[in-house]
Amino acid sequence: MSMNSFGHLFRVTTWGESHGPALGATVDGCPPGVALEPEMLQVWLDKRRPGQDKNMTQRNEADEVRILSGVYEGKTTGTPIQLMIENTDQRSKDYGEIEKTFRPGHADITYWQKYGIRDPRGGGRSSARETAARVAAGGVAREVLKALVPGLEVKGYMTQMGELHLDRSKFDWDAIDTNPFWLPDASAAKDWEAYLQKIRTDENDSVGAAIEVVVRGAPAGLGAPVYAKLDTDLAAAMMSINAVKGVEIGEGMAAAALRGTTNADEIFMGENGPEYSSNHAGGILGGISTGQDIVVRFAVKPTSSILTPRKSITKAGEPIEVVTKGRHDPCVGIRAVPVGEAMAACVVLDHLLMDRAQTGGDRGKIG
Amino acid sequence: MSMNSFGHLFRVTTWGESHGPALGATVDGCPPGVALEPEMLQVWLDKRRPGQDKNMTQRNEADEVRILSGVYEGKTTGTPIQLMIENTDQRSKDYGEIEKTFRPGHADITYWQKYGIRDPRGGGRSSARETAARVAAGGVAREVLKALVPGLEVKGYMTQMGELHLDRSKFDWDAIDTNPFWLPDASAAKDWEAYLQKIRTDENDSVGAAIEVVVRGAPAGLGAPVYAKLDTDLAAAMMSINAVKGVEIGEGMAAAALRGTTNADEIFMGENGPEYSSNHAGGILGGISTGQDIVVRFAVKPTSSILTPRKSITKAGEPIEVVTKGRHDPCVGIRAVPVGEAMAACVVLDHLLMDRAQTGGDRGKIG
Amino acid sequence: MSMNSFGHLFRVTTWGESHGPALGATVDGCPPGVALEPEMLQVWLDKRRPGQDKNMTQRNEADEVRILSGVYEGKTTGTPIQLMIENTDQRSKDYGEIEKTFRPGHADITYWQKYGIRDPRGGGRSSARETAARVAAGGVAREVLKALVPGLEVKGYMTQMGELHLDRSKFDWDAIDTNPFWLPDASAAKDWEAYLQKIRTDENDSVGAAIEVVVRGAPAGLGAPVYAKLDTDLAAAMMSINAVKGVEIGEGMAAAALRGTTNADEIFMGENGPEYSSNHAGGILGGISTGQDIVVRFAVKPTSSILTPRKSITKAGEPIEVVTKGRHDPCVGIRAVPVGEAMAACVVLDHLLMDRAQTGGDRGKIG
Amino acid sequence: MSMNSFGHLFRVTTWGESHGPALGATVDGCPPGVALEPEMLQVWLDKRRPGQDKNMTQRNEADEVRILSGVYEGKTTGTPIQLMIENTDQRSKDYGEIEKTFRPGHADITYWQKYGIRDPRGGGRSSARETAARVAAGGVAREVLKALVPGLEVKGYMTQMGELHLDRSKFDWDAIDTNPFWLPDASAAKDWEAYLQKIRTDENDSVGAAIEVVVRGAPAGLGAPVYAKLDTDLAAAMMSINAVKGVEIGEGMAAAALRGTTNADEIFMGENGPEYSSNHAGGILGGISTGQDIVVRFAVKPTSSILTPRKSITKAGEPIEVVTKGRHDPCVGIRAVPVGEAMAACVVLDHLLMDRAQTGGDRGKIG
Repeated sequence: MSMNSFGHLFRVTTWGESHGPALGATVDGCPPGVALEPEMLQVWLDKRRPGQDKNMTQRNEADEVRILSGVYEGKTTGTPIQLMIENTDQRSKDYGEIEKTFRPGHADITYWQKYGIRDPRGGGRSSARETAARVAAGGVAREVLKALVPGLEVKGYMTQMGELHLDRSKFDWDAIDTNPFWLPDASAAKDWEAYLQKIRTDENDSVGAAIEVVVRGAPAGLGAPVYAKLDTDLAAAMMSINAVKGVEIGEGMAAAALRGTTNADEIFMGENGPEYSSNHAGGILGGISTGQDIVVRFAVKPTSSILTPRKSITKAGEPIEVVTKGRHDPCVGIRAVPVGEAMAACVVLDHLLMDRAQTGGDRGKIG
Repeated sequence: MSMNSFGHLFRVTTWGESHGPALGATVDGCPPGVALEPEMLQVWLDKRRPGQDKNMTQRNEADEVRILSGVYEGKTTGTPIQLMIENTDQRSKDYGEIEKTFRPGHADITYWQKYGIRDPRGGGRSSARETAARVAAGGVAREVLKALVPGLEVKGYMTQMGELHLDRSKFDWDAIDTNPFWLPDASAAKDWEAYLQKIRTDENDSVGAAIEVVVRGAPAGLGAPVYAKLDTDLAAAMMSINAVKGVEIGEGMAAAALRGTTNADEIFMGENGPEYSSNHAGGILGGISTGQDIVVRFAVKPTSSILTPRKSITKAGEPIEVVTKGRHDPCVGIRAVPVGEAMAACVVLDHLLMDRAQTGGDRGKIG
Repeated sequence: MSMNSFGHLFRVTTWGESHGPALGATVDGCPPGVALEPEMLQVWLDKRRPGQDKNMTQRNEADEVRILSGVYEGKTTGTPIQLMIENTDQRSKDYGEIEKTFRPGHADITYWQKYGIRDPRGGGRSSARETAARVAAGGVAREVLKALVPGLEVKGYMTQMGELHLDRSKFDWDAIDTNPFWLPDASAAKDWEAYLQKIRTDENDSVGAAIEVVVRGAPAGLGAPVYAKLDTDLAAAMMSINAVKGVEIGEGMAAAALRGTTNADEIFMGENGPEYSSNHAGGILGGISTGQDIVVRFAVKPTSSILTPRKSITKAGEPIEVVTKGRHDPCVGIRAVPVGEAMAACVVLDHLLMDRAQTGGDRGKIG
Repeated sequence: MSMNSFGHLFRVTTWGESHGPALGATVDGCPPGVALEPEMLQVWLDKRRPGQDKNMTQRNEADEVRILSGVYEGKTTGTPIQLMIENTDQRSKDYGEIEKTFRPGHADITYWQKYGIRDPRGGGRSSARETAARVAAGGVAREVLKALVPGLEVKGYMTQMGELHLDRSKFDWDAIDTNPFWLPDASAAKDWEAYLQKIRTDENDSVGAAIEVVVRGAPAGLGAPVYAKLDTDLAAAMMSINAVKGVEIGEGMAAAALRGTTNADEIFMGENGPEYSSNHAGGILGGISTGQDIVVRFAVKPTSSILTPRKSITKAGEPIEVVTKGRHDPCVGIRAVPVGEAMAACVVLDHLLMDRAQTGGDRGKIG
């Protein structure tokens, strides 16, 4: 076991603190012979990068990823791929005063209690900056998936930010990349932006969000019984992202309100195999993919790093009021979109490799 | 990796099919010297057992657990504990006709597609019967926790069944064990029962549910960064249970609607250490326990095994209408309560052992 | 991690004590659709079974293996296979007196020191009886290998017993199964038997042995860099067998005496691919199979359970003389042959599945 | 599972190729609060470093290790420690011609067959250069051991090089660090040097070696049954080192020749607990440490990179004669000494943490 690793066969170990010299991911188990250049990863890191938009923290990081191993002449060799991102804009003085203080809603207090030591610079290991390493690793997974399952797509978007909800009747897959909220409804983006600016600027506050990630084009048969269910691994992957408090597959928590007569997706025979009347299941039955869209959703809590003062204590146990003046996202859910995509890509590839190991990729015949 | 195992150090591997000769759990990594008798496990199995109540399937299983190894003269020896439950009421003829049919909303079709073979008797490995093994293993975890953390409690209860919601203003911890729905509001139990009977008998239908599990009395400092977060492991544990479609920690999906000013729990110095103004976090910050109640919630979909006909296909690809005549729970969420408790007990113990390994159980001092 | 498991994808967890009600193995990750009947496993258990020959302990165990899960209508389903062997001839009274005594050369003292409790009946978990579970699991591996790599053979034999060495100039592959020592030289078997009887009967002593296991017909390309090298996993597999004190691949420890000019096997182009002038490497280069015979050798120490008195202490720290009167093999190396074969079969299959996962089984072209 | 990781709780993942920009190790699970500075690791890397002596390859690498994460103000924080060593002296032109050739006795051919691609520069991932990362990780393990088990020592030395054997009657623990062969007999070092120079210079050849590593001062009770035996993990750790072909614990392969009357170490009660008449067991019984010296030995084959021509083939399948002109050690066993020590330190620490997890470090009382 490794506490900082995920995946069974496509195995990612991340390392690094927010304000250390660098952070990164070690990707083990990658299939050989897959084309891989830093630019293929950089595009996803740029999507997650802070400082590029007024909706995000103003910390300015290039987030330039280097491939230190596992690639020869532009192709993966099957050996571990080390992805390193150097930290350039560290400004650790911003964080000096909080060394003796526990910010409410942060890992400051629990890290201190557990380890008796913590790196206070930018949250150290508990910083959302760790997700850059995931995005880089997810970029590798995407390239392998492209080689093994042409046409497979992994796409994330926001479905909720505070009081605002995505209007699913206006769902437009092609709109997702056209607005800073990765919103599948371009018409709503302006309202979302105004709402977020008001929260940040007028109210010195932050807000939560819900993100949905869809994997389209995955074959039936991915997943495994009981504790390596595809949905189990997706749930773990998403819950491991900073600030995530809930994970749903298909109907998710709403399934508690449903009846058996409406929940089960009916099956029909299509030209290319089974088809379904609906997708309440989120593309997974018994932990194994059906071939439909795999749908996973997660909620991100509002960041506690806000300008409004909050009560807390110091290491000495003295009461204190905490105001976080640093550079922080008013809605970390925006940047969680590429992170969620990266995790989904890694999990699906991992299961593709596991399936290939056990079954050779053969499928039971229908029709 | 093992697809049928969970836990890092307190490691549980379950095995067995619904209608095979037996099923069970292999528990590895259990601390030695802990008192363990079959009766200590049986009490939890009896809580989960089918056939004991009209709200459950009428399958009649004794679910008697035997300890085949790892215990000597009533104490654990530190070697693997094999827990076996023999299947006595198999009635496989009930299931004969569905061999060639895929029930909508079941794992029938995905197991077939993945493996090219499936055990159709009672759902085989995908049956909820597998959860009996988890409950037995959870019983072991409870005894170890009792020895290592006196006073720690793991308690589950229903918070929703279809349209009915727990009225939290009437929350009564002591009422949970007094009614068949493990409802912390004894006054509501009669209504829940009438509602469920109507769904089953009048409507030939089933209904979903939400279950909450609370771990009270766990020390601060359990959990680990990034991919072995306590909430990550809890999410995986719950999502691995049959029919679960969503998992929440603390505020869960509702966090998407919150503001930073309300979400972060403020910290005060109490007599015995830090105290919190609220518990939006569900007892976990940065993946590590705070010492507050650990709160995890999950939703269970309505079973698809109902008397109302549903459209599907056969292995030959022919259309068919499926009616499930067997003995099935109208709300599998009821029996999911002891299962959720068992999983929570295993995860918390596992993290207690991991913490002891890395830190020796020492805590950073506050005050 | 599980302390009682081995294998990455074909994952075996063994459980059970020498004199408990039963012992067994949980086999996870087995490919589906492979023919499997108890008789296919029984043949290997019979080979290892005690009491069948005067060279072995006289404990009389049927060692009848039952398949409790993971098989439907004679074929593996891809779900965990539980293999159980009930203990029938327990005679625990034989062992009663040693509860307070630590036998020299046994795990009695270390189990006690580590766990503060131990099952003294027949050595409990530390008994060589545990290897029956490995042999059963190895039988499953053999059937899968038969399906995936027709023609692959796994064969073990003794090369040394005390002062007696196999004369390699008389090596006869076909003689192995014709004598009770699995000796590839039928002419020597009579001498080995006389030698062993003398040691047991005349000298009240026991003797060590060396066993060689060959895997013939494995494809090139199995194994992986650094910590999942094929030889690394073989070394761990063999060293995990009771009483094993050394493991060698190819030249083994003798490599220390060699020169580079003689050690490296020269390569030639044969009709079906590369061929080698010799096999000093034991079929493995850089942790990956070459396609030659995979050759692993291990030494088993003489059992300490002998009739000659030996000095030791009691739990109370008092001096005592220990004589082991039970039923014990004068050379446990004989029964280690099928155990070594079983471990080799499991490791090779495991690597075959891992290779299939990462590379799809494709090979780099030569010629 | 990760193919490039080892350890259960103190988990090391190495990455990097011989001639890539850098290589390193990610160390996960390290206890917090342990003093750690780069210089503490550098001392061990300097011991392994090439180019420092005429007995080693003349490649000139500074092997300067940087700590990129997991340490704050000179103390470990409990989060992953990234250790990076940049490659400075790459001279890849030395290796250009061998891209199309498979060197006999190297991993060239098996990497090509498995992956269909290989990094030919300096052997890529299969280079012994990977062991630098292990040595760095081992340095971390040593510092943690120093904090947890004061007085514990890990010491390696050569016992054989070709025809030369250590004269155990002259064994001098204090001499080990005084000569370039880490020989516990300073008087022999000159002869060993002359012998090695003759092999390299006069004979254009290389030679194998045997290395023994002793862990002194480890407590009784480390290790675990069956597949996480201390000796199993030591065997895997040593066999995973490049060029290792055999591993022995205590008597090792020689146990095959022994009798029960001589092999089992007799037990006496000493002032501080049990003492043993001898140490045939190598400090391990039933996979668990006895408190005696833990003794592990391994053999390293002679490197195949020699100036004497050897027959091989090209990728095209054409015959070729291979002469390796690069800078290579005539006896890689010398540098294997610090590598073996590093692996032993990691394994022992890993088991110390595992033991603390399961038993809390409590020991069964004797006397």
